[in-house]
Amino acid sequence: MWREHMITYFNGQLLPKESVHISPDDRGFVFADGVYEVIHVYRGQLFATEQHLRRLANSLSEVRIAWPDIQRLPAIARELVKVNGLDQSDGLVYVQITRGVAPRLHPFPDESVPPTVYATASPVEPVPEHWERGIKVILVPDIRWGRCDIKSLALLSNVLAAQEAKERGADEAIFVRDGVITEGARTNVAAVVDGVLVTHPRDHRILPGITRNVVLELCQHLGIPVRESPLAVIDLPRVEELMILGTTKEVTPVVRVDEITIGDGLPGPIAQRLERAYRDLIGAL
Amino acid sequence: MWREHMITYFNGQLLPKESVHISPDDRGFVFADGVYEVIHVYRGQLFATEQHLRRLANSLSEVRIAWPDIQRLPAIARELVKVNGLDQSDGLVYVQITRGVAPRLHPFPDESVPPTVYATASPVEPVPEHWERGIKVILVPDIRWGRCDIKSLALLSNVLAAQEAKERGADEAIFVRDGVITEGARTNVAAVVDGVLVTHPRDHRILPGITRNVVLELCQHLGIPVRESPLAVIDLPRVEELMILGTTKEVTPVVRVDEITIGDGLPGPIAQRLERAYRDLIGAL
Repeated sequence: MWREHMITYFNGQLLPKESVHISPDDRGFVFADGVYEVIHVYRGQLFATEQHLRRLANSLSEVRIAWPDIQRLPAIARELVKVNGLDQSDGLVYVQITRGVAPRLHPFPDESVPPTVYATASPVEPVPEHWERGIKVILVPDIRWGRCDIKSLALLSNVLAAQEAKERGADEAIFVRDGVITEGARTNVAAVVDGVLVTHPRDHRILPGITRNVVLELCQHLGIPVRESPLAVIDLPRVEELMILGTTKEVTPVVRVDEITIGDGLPGPIAQRLERAYRDLIGAL
Repeated sequence: MWREHMITYFNGQLLPKESVHISPDDRGFVFADGVYEVIHVYRGQLFATEQHLRRLANSLSEVRIAWPDIQRLPAIARELVKVNGLDQSDGLVYVQITRGVAPRLHPFPDESVPPTVYATASPVEPVPEHWERGIKVILVPDIRWGRCDIKSLALLSNVLAAQEAKERGADEAIFVRDGVITEGARTNVAAVVDGVLVTHPRDHRILPGITRNVVLELCQHLGIPVRESPLAVIDLPRVEELMILGTTKEVTPVVRVDEITIGDGLPGPIAQRLERAYRDLIGAL
């Protein structure tokens, strides 16, 4: 959502976005040397804040960026929601931390260089027809690096995959490595096979999705059996349901993969149960 | 080299670096959605400009960023060299092109969004003891993405590898994938085995290095046989020489890999011949 006069957070200050000047020496700009998070806001309330905070702490620790103020993030996010008039709205809080501004040399700069912290809150509109009709996705080779568990800024392959999906009339690109579905360009992926929810195990090939976590917990409550194991592409024609899971997309049924129709081409019952349960959680915020 | 009041190029203008304001919506900052080049300047003269230009055009084309002014790059680079007082000096011209400023959505923005173009010229000091004594390198797993032939901004794994090298007292980190040496975090790698210069074939696992190209041509002139084929790590103890090749490092002999001493622990005769021939080329600029 493109908003003029959005108020953003930049290195300790609230500033209009136009006043945020990133240095061309910022390591986020020249090296993708940073990490980020996106938190969904429902009616002004942050969702799954603690889980996002833990994942951010983990990403920072894996790339060895120190942000001493990380515990202030929920307060910063709530302030951004408020000053941008989103108290009663749905939105997304985005936060990005880079290794700061320093001469362009690959090794880390001196420890005295502070990280660059930038955060925004912007409104988001749900796309109800995605839940009602399901979406189309495409399969693309997973050529990403070996640490997809880190939510890093090095997103060029995700960008190229998302663009290919758009050009082919699809809403998401699903990565395939060694014949196995890993995850989407912006989401995790789950299938239903013989009534069991199957999703890639948590390892370095996928982001440990917060929505994925929440859905696995919901499955436990709802008595839906879960198997965290790789899904082979050759098994796609026999999956009963497919869905993508993510902070923005929540639980979105997938009804078509390239030219393969999933199930009967309509959102399946398990995806619908999970969606409803997810919306109940949000409603209880 | 950290210089105050450096004059840089930014979207068509020459500006002091302090006046260059990158938008936090720049796709280079949030997505690593861009590419770059580094050109060596010797006594004020650009080296191998046409080759750098061709590689940049190829990187841009692979990620589908249009920079209509690319043919102006040599003129821009020469202007930067001049206004920064490097006419008689050695330096580096750095140029980075991103997909421009747009709301944060993975697919490409509208075609009307112009790319962000940023370029600098800064002085560089050679490190003669590197050529005289050779350097130490470490081996690290090559976990980078599958398109290392594109000179993209998504450099986080190179940053982490370079930092590890620094912490272990080494000057470069060499990537190993499937038991084979691909390239360095900032350089290509070549070995001498039975008098033959061996270097990884040009494919998607390595950057098509300009210095690598120049060295392969020099080998032809000097009658040094060349084999473009993968070098297995287990063969390291029996290589006669090892060297890294790059725009900044030129031809730098490697005398130690982790705890393995290469040859007799001194720069070898072929690396020295190539270095001298490389310096002759530069001298003839």
